[in-house]
Amino acid sequence: MIKRLVRSLFAPAVQRLLPRRIEPPLSRWRLSRSADGVLSLDGHRLDALLARWGSPLHLVDGAALRRAAVDFLAIPSGATRGCDIAYSFKTNPVPGVLRRLLAAGIGAEVVSPYELWLALRLGFPPRQIVYNGPARSEASMRSAIEHRIGLVNLNSRCEIAPFAALARELGQRPRVGIRVALPGSWSGQFGERTDSGAAFRAFAEAAQRPELSLVALHAHRGSEFTTHEELEQFIAQVLVFTDELRARLSLELEVLDLGGSLACCSVRQLGGLEKRLNRAFDTELQPQATDELSVRAAVALAVSQIEAHYHRVNRPVPRILLEPGKSMTGHAQMLLTRVVNVQDEVEGVTHAVLDASVFVAAPVRAEYHHLLPVRTQRGAALRSYRLVGPSCTPADVLYPSWRLPELAPGDVLAMMDSGAYFIPFSSAFSFPRPGVVMLENGEETLLRAADSYEQMAGLEGAPPR
Amino acid sequence: MIKRLVRSLFAPAVQRLLPRRIEPPLSRWRLSRSADGVLSLDGHRLDALLARWGSPLHLVDGAALRRAAVDFLAIPSGATRGCDIAYSFKTNPVPGVLRRLLAAGIGAEVVSPYELWLALRLGFPPRQIVYNGPARSEASMRSAIEHRIGLVNLNSRCEIAPFAALARELGQRPRVGIRVALPGSWSGQFGERTDSGAAFRAFAEAAQRPELSLVALHAHRGSEFTTHEELEQFIAQVLVFTDELRARLSLELEVLDLGGSLACCSVRQLGGLEKRLNRAFDTELQPQATDELSVRAAVALAVSQIEAHYHRVNRPVPRILLEPGKSMTGHAQMLLTRVVNVQDEVEGVTHAVLDASVFVAAPVRAEYHHLLPVRTQRGAALRSYRLVGPSCTPADVLYPSWRLPELAPGDVLAMMDSGAYFIPFSSAFSFPRPGVVMLENGEETLLRAADSYEQMAGLEGAPPR
Repeated sequence: MIKRLVRSLFAPAVQRLLPRRIEPPLSRWRLSRSADGVLSLDGHRLDALLARWGSPLHLVDGAALRRAAVDFLAIPSGATRGCDIAYSFKTNPVPGVLRRLLAAGIGAEVVSPYELWLALRLGFPPRQIVYNGPARSEASMRSAIEHRIGLVNLNSRCEIAPFAALARELGQRPRVGIRVALPGSWSGQFGERTDSGAAFRAFAEAAQRPELSLVALHAHRGSEFTTHEELEQFIAQVLVFTDELRARLSLELEVLDLGGSLACCSVRQLGGLEKRLNRAFDTELQPQATDELSVRAAVALAVSQIEAHYHRVNRPVPRILLEPGKSMTGHAQMLLTRVVNVQDEVEGVTHAVLDASVFVAAPVRAEYHHLLPVRTQRGAALRSYRLVGPSCTPADVLYPSWRLPELAPGDVLAMMDSGAYFIPFSSAFSFPRPGVVMLENGEETLLRAADSYEQMAGLEGAPPR
Repeated sequence: MIKRLVRSLFAPAVQRLLPRRIEPPLSRWRLSRSADGVLSLDGHRLDALLARWGSPLHLVDGAALRRAAVDFLAIPSGATRGCDIAYSFKTNPVPGVLRRLLAAGIGAEVVSPYELWLALRLGFPPRQIVYNGPARSEASMRSAIEHRIGLVNLNSRCEIAPFAALARELGQRPRVGIRVALPGSWSGQFGERTDSGAAFRAFAEAAQRPELSLVALHAHRGSEFTTHEELEQFIAQVLVFTDELRARLSLELEVLDLGGSLACCSVRQLGGLEKRLNRAFDTELQPQATDELSVRAAVALAVSQIEAHYHRVNRPVPRILLEPGKSMTGHAQMLLTRVVNVQDEVEGVTHAVLDASVFVAAPVRAEYHHLLPVRTQRGAALRSYRLVGPSCTPADVLYPSWRLPELAPGDVLAMMDSGAYFIPFSSAFSFPRPGVVMLENGEETLLRAADSYEQMAGLEGAPPR
């Protein structure tokens, strides 16, 4: 009662203060709307596609993946070499997606025994595999050495001695880096800090190990770069530290691994206040306005800044390794979902229940993901809906308030930019995880089927002890 | 630097203000510690058990499950009948656990097409199945009618007409209830509100449908009952509304479905402040002190309050249906995990990296789950650790600060009370989801194997279109 009163009193005023959402162009996702108002990707109508493959469904745009790989591997104008690129497997570990990237010349950044196994299983060339992470089993470290993978970044000092012992036992001299934590970057369990001297001590210790070929520094900011300046400052920090390694240890690194942290061009973090206003007063969320730091711009900046530095100090330019996740696949996938029920309005809120839960779309809680009605007429009247998932918990809210044309059961919605962290964070909470279909060159290919009930239950038979 | 300063200046004072953790007795979980300091359940040493089955591992205590079922089904002294019990499948949907409950006489509360399928597949008698939820497919509603399941609770008014149409088509008269939202209970997408008249209107509409046998009211508070008084008030609200239904619609309900919301006896919600102090100043979290509202006490209260009311108004006493989740299985399971790495202390914090991530232990973020070292000596010196998982995100923190004996790689820890929402919220984020073993009558039985790498990848072959 009070809620409704506050809402009806203040919502119009608050809404006037904040602008209506500026619709991003459909071309951002290579979409178009037909004369009868239906969205298509490369001429494939999304409603028909969903009817063919079942709802909900992740749809991968193969052409967008290929384009992202090309952008990352491009040699910036004026440079003789670009960057080496290893895709962050954890961001979207669907084999069909990974194979597509492999075919485009992208390497693998893996962070667990499983992901290392998967990279080798899918045929990624070992020299293009980078193995990171804070908790790697001895068996997987052994496998990394035996397969002579390109780089093992040691996450903390405590890993140096055991890994060197393993290398000695296997009679190999693996290529290693040390993960450092720069001021302003993730620290915690990740890397040794440069500002305390711990990172330097770890390099000194590893450099003394004849069993290890110490070739790389690994730095990963964690929080996303939103401007050129942020990336530039981060690289400058890396260069200061590499200069120190050279000056005090005579260490000349072959590889500067700058990690990931490039944003998906059409996704941004939501602030706490805008989320609260959106929920309480139906104010609209604004999409990411411009693409401040495009992939090509980031690659060009890294190459020119690092080349310039090494030319200045007259030392050999190291290779640059990037480990993109969101910026490679985030925008190249959407989650199609169907409306199951539209409930009566209560206190100014109308709940529409979708067949996709927040448990297969976890990032939408914290990020702006544009939402499109798959069928609509130009000029259709809009109203605000609270879009919730099908599971039995009040936490299953995908969009607290989003303006859409009048909804009815069966209507299809497209949640954009589902290509990063939607799939790996998915749980089969009461409902199967969706299937994944890739559209490329006019072909629809099932990359992964939705969970079957038998799979979900694990009823195919657990082996007796 | 500043962080360390603040920590070292204030931590001792803050710690003095707050008491050391009071260790709950091991008997709470039927555990004992051998002379050499190793935890055992029913004589099975947990370190040996983990070595046999692989780490991490969920261990189900079959005897605790059986005991919980007996407690729920007990007829309170002085009463002639107890409650009907339908276990909330979504809380722990492992078939082996569900079968154990079925064998003990427990029914099924299901909230999705998958869970309905599973209940039927496992052989739950249809009359003991209750089908709830805000988004049920037509096919599953059809199945519910055809199998003549005990109760379908309609979640909102918009479901009445389509469900009645389906019943007419199938020539059946299914037993239905209406889910209501009482003041102070979950509302949102769940149920029709009693305070706005919507719930009454939904009952009136359903009562007029000759295709439906309107037998039940479904109310679920959502937030946990922590005292007798809270449960009593909730039941009183239900009784006021059922009196209104009788007075205005001449409706005499057969079933009062009171939902779940009973707490796990050894788990409590953590407050924001205690979480912050624990992380910043190593203060200790306190376990749930007493079992304020035991299962037997809750059942006895519900039976006596409802019987007394109906005797007073001289009307037939309805059956009482409870849908427990956490209170049935929460305490009957633990998650065993191994220490992979212990890092150097940084700014007063020592990170120990475990092989179980927060992505297979999601509830630990918000709830107190006691943690035990599987091997320790009486009087061993304790120190504070930050226990993190193996994945590559700073979100993978299980215990920001917990005092333990000196840890080394290979040590085993037991996270208690993992029997509610650990498994269904699990995702295979870079690492396989753990296996599940049940210990009962001296036998260890594998209920579900850990994810295999092939399963995780979905490489067993997606069928072509």
